[in-house]
Amino acid sequence: MEISENKLIRKIKAFEDKSNKVLRGIGDDGAVVQLPTGPYVLVQDAMVEHVHFEFSFVDPYDLGKKAVYVNVSDILSMGALPLYFLVTIGLNPALTSRDVSRLYRGMRQAAREFGAILIGGDTTESKNDFFIDISMMGKVITKSYLGRDKAREGDFIAVTGSLGESAYGLHLFKEGRGGKGLKRFLKRYSSPKPPYPVWKELVKHDITRAMMDVSDGLLIDLGRMMTESRKGAIIHFERLPIPSILRKDNKEIFALSGGEDYQFLFTFPKNKLETVQRITMQGHPVSIIGEVIQGKGVKVLSKGKTLEIPVKGYEHFGNPQ
Amino acid sequence: MEISENKLIRKIKAFEDKSNKVLRGIGDDGAVVQLPTGPYVLVQDAMVEHVHFEFSFVDPYDLGKKAVYVNVSDILSMGALPLYFLVTIGLNPALTSRDVSRLYRGMRQAAREFGAILIGGDTTESKNDFFIDISMMGKVITKSYLGRDKAREGDFIAVTGSLGESAYGLHLFKEGRGGKGLKRFLKRYSSPKPPYPVWKELVKHDITRAMMDVSDGLLIDLGRMMTESRKGAIIHFERLPIPSILRKDNKEIFALSGGEDYQFLFTFPKNKLETVQRITMQGHPVSIIGEVIQGKGVKVLSKGKTLEIPVKGYEHFGNPQ
Repeated sequence: MEISENKLIRKIKAFEDKSNKVLRGIGDDGAVVQLPTGPYVLVQDAMVEHVHFEFSFVDPYDLGKKAVYVNVSDILSMGALPLYFLVTIGLNPALTSRDVSRLYRGMRQAAREFGAILIGGDTTESKNDFFIDISMMGKVITKSYLGRDKAREGDFIAVTGSLGESAYGLHLFKEGRGGKGLKRFLKRYSSPKPPYPVWKELVKHDITRAMMDVSDGLLIDLGRMMTESRKGAIIHFERLPIPSILRKDNKEIFALSGGEDYQFLFTFPKNKLETVQRITMQGHPVSIIGEVIQGKGVKVLSKGKTLEIPVKGYEHFGNPQ
Repeated sequence: MEISENKLIRKIKAFEDKSNKVLRGIGDDGAVVQLPTGPYVLVQDAMVEHVHFEFSFVDPYDLGKKAVYVNVSDILSMGALPLYFLVTIGLNPALTSRDVSRLYRGMRQAAREFGAILIGGDTTESKNDFFIDISMMGKVITKSYLGRDKAREGDFIAVTGSLGESAYGLHLFKEGRGGKGLKRFLKRYSSPKPPYPVWKELVKHDITRAMMDVSDGLLIDLGRMMTESRKGAIIHFERLPIPSILRKDNKEIFALSGGEDYQFLFTFPKNKLETVQRITMQGHPVSIIGEVIQGKGVKVLSKGKTLEIPVKGYEHFGNPQ
């Protein structure tokens, strides 16, 4: 493809027919449709061999978990709980039926953690690369869906957990490194479970209207949220939740540009600050990293000065890392 | 894979968690879930380059139509009308952004014919083969869903339209043949629109409880229906709706083993015979090809004698044509 992923999505969006039953279409973590009893979310997310993963790093069991987690993450990001999912697998000749069992065992494990039920899908051959594509349906449980388009001027910008863990994990895999203190990074890469406990607190206390998951890197993803909300963002580098080992290893850039953390990025009005701080004190990690402003784009400040970031993150076409 | 598709699906079915909200899970054209306002159908069906199609035969526009049609076909087969769909495309380097536009234009065209609305999905890179995977949601409009498990002893077995058209179309493509009288076969292969008018009549007159589409060939598909219904079938070769050119060209076998016709295969009780005949007389082609019996398997009779069929149809693993 000769165009970037953002451009491609804009192109595809032009083919979307309008309907007043579609509360949110292309351009968010998931689509929201109005059924007679309320809003439901539909998402679909694929993982392709040699693009998203290598079997030399990731076991089929973990891959199954990850494929479910990334879809659960999209469902949760919209303020919904997962209900059902379907799976298409494209099986290349290298996969054995034991691998397929491990893959489905991983999916079942991850799905059970969130109450999602496998109901169908498609099994097909693939001549070269293996792929897995999951579609998932969930029910919105927030007052209205959480969308990338709902950030408002003056909102704080916050993120759950730590950033850059998954990219650091991939880096370790590539270098063949492991060991005790590094396990969490490898695991964040190979089976990134969405941070469900903190999500539940955020939803319970009605903290946010604008949420998404960090899948392609903070800068790209926050940039997308600002585009959808027609706002700009200022974030402070010193406030980013960067694991100390990334600082030591000179990999702080992963916190800005590393993909696949599957933490939640959200904004909230200032009158919710006290509640957010209370949630944090109760052991649910949330970092307030910046603020929504008039304008557009994402500005990163470090010690009061604007940082220039060479590589913004993972775009699937045109702008590879 | 060292096992057949049927075996693989049985294996996968073991990973299905039970729920009383899942009215029908793995093993049918689609899954049926009970939402508070009624039953909905969810389906997901992929097409992979070099497995399901070649770009040398199929233009991206037709491919987009076909990808939607095969999912619509699954939705209709369950007694439902399509509502929404999501699309994952795995884009290999050979595809241009113009191809992608044509692909989505085809999808939109096919979707509009059935009132389905594109709401989302995923765009990803693929290093080798292009793939498209669509998930679709529909609402059941029949009294209860139409399932492969609902054929009853004594039911007639019937099929809409003609059989073998799509396989003959593929055969013509491979031989580089075309011309006036052959167009319908090429078209049935490249964009097999589900026979909506006859489906509407069948549903309106409450003809059937057991329906599926013919996607992998009559023998394999009818065999699956009989397995799910724990019954057997006898069909009469002379009653199969085989286009005369297939007979002339000695390709009658395509009517039994050719895939991708996307006609509807269904059973109905004898007291509906008169209504079915009336529907046929009104120009909606339905052929009564056999009967459901006690036992198992599918027996094909020709002039009273059992036919032995060497190749039963298209199975995605183990048993290639």
